[in-house]
Amino acid sequence: MKTNVVPEQDGLLPVGIDGAYLLELKVIPAAGGPVLRMLRPDSPLFAGFGELYFSEVEPGAVKAWKQHARQTQHFAAPSGRLRVALYDDREASPTRGTLREVLLGRPDHYRLLRIPPRVWYGFTALGTAPALICNCADIPHDPAESIRRDPEDASIPYSWRERNPTGS
Amino acid sequence: MKTNVVPEQDGLLPVGIDGAYLLELKVIPAAGGPVLRMLRPDSPLFAGFGELYFSEVEPGAVKAWKQHARQTQHFAAPSGRLRVALYDDREASPTRGTLREVLLGRPDHYRLLRIPPRVWYGFTALGTAPALICNCADIPHDPAESIRRDPEDASIPYSWRERNPTGS
Repeated sequence: MKTNVVPEQDGLLPVGIDGAYLLELKVIPAAGGPVLRMLRPDSPLFAGFGELYFSEVEPGAVKAWKQHARQTQHFAAPSGRLRVALYDDREASPTRGTLREVLLGRPDHYRLLRIPPRVWYGFTALGTAPALICNCADIPHDPAESIRRDPEDASIPYSWRERNPTGS
Repeated sequence: MKTNVVPEQDGLLPVGIDGAYLLELKVIPAAGGPVLRMLRPDSPLFAGFGELYFSEVEPGAVKAWKQHARQTQHFAAPSGRLRVALYDDREASPTRGTLREVLLGRPDHYRLLRIPPRVWYGFTALGTAPALICNCADIPHDPAESIRRDPEDASIPYSWRERNPTGS
């Protein structure tokens, strides 16, 4: 299978799931409010521009699980804080069976998360304010190439309810 | 000069400054929070992917004025509310001397604003929460191709202070 290996470089952190990476993003202080960088074609994680959209997540809400056959996700959280869970059940993946959690959001976790195709993902908003995921995906949205499972689906060894029992 | 005319179509609104347009953007309700579309290559306003970043604006703060020689801006406000002012002093522009104000932000003004090169722009956050501009520009940031003027520069017939005397 395609392993999606990205060359090692400063600020780039493997997540522990083959093809998934984190990249630290720059926050540039400015009068009136900071500038938050996200993505440009020379980023080590850039894979093409397909679609840019936001997913707002109400405090405590869970959006899970989803998997794409072809689309690569590039997530950052410019406002609010999120916990993203990833699960790899890809046949022949060197990290098959691995579950990882990743935090996104300012000030400590303003970074880019790359989720490769065929990896399950979901997320929940932490704290008391809505959180905003910005996704800059490599191909346009196509409902035919994504599948969903229920947040508590037994095939994925993760419980949003138990991880986050109060929903907060 | 290049006029940057975009073919007329549903949801596309000329701003009154040559080459500047607004495009209504879809907000798709979903369990846990809505999905907010912003840009894809088949958008009538898409001009290439150069850089994606955010500018956060503190309540009442003014970020102005700026002008780019080559870069086209594509602004949307996924959180908070903003007033953007545009001023056209381009020689040979059919709308030379025109000043326009545009509101961006949910729920009523979630839309894409295209600002062509060589048009002055600035913005201020309305309301009591920080506002977030997402810009998906057609070329990467290059400090050599932008110029700035003071918010109250006398060459531009607009006063942020008078327009917004309380800073709120």
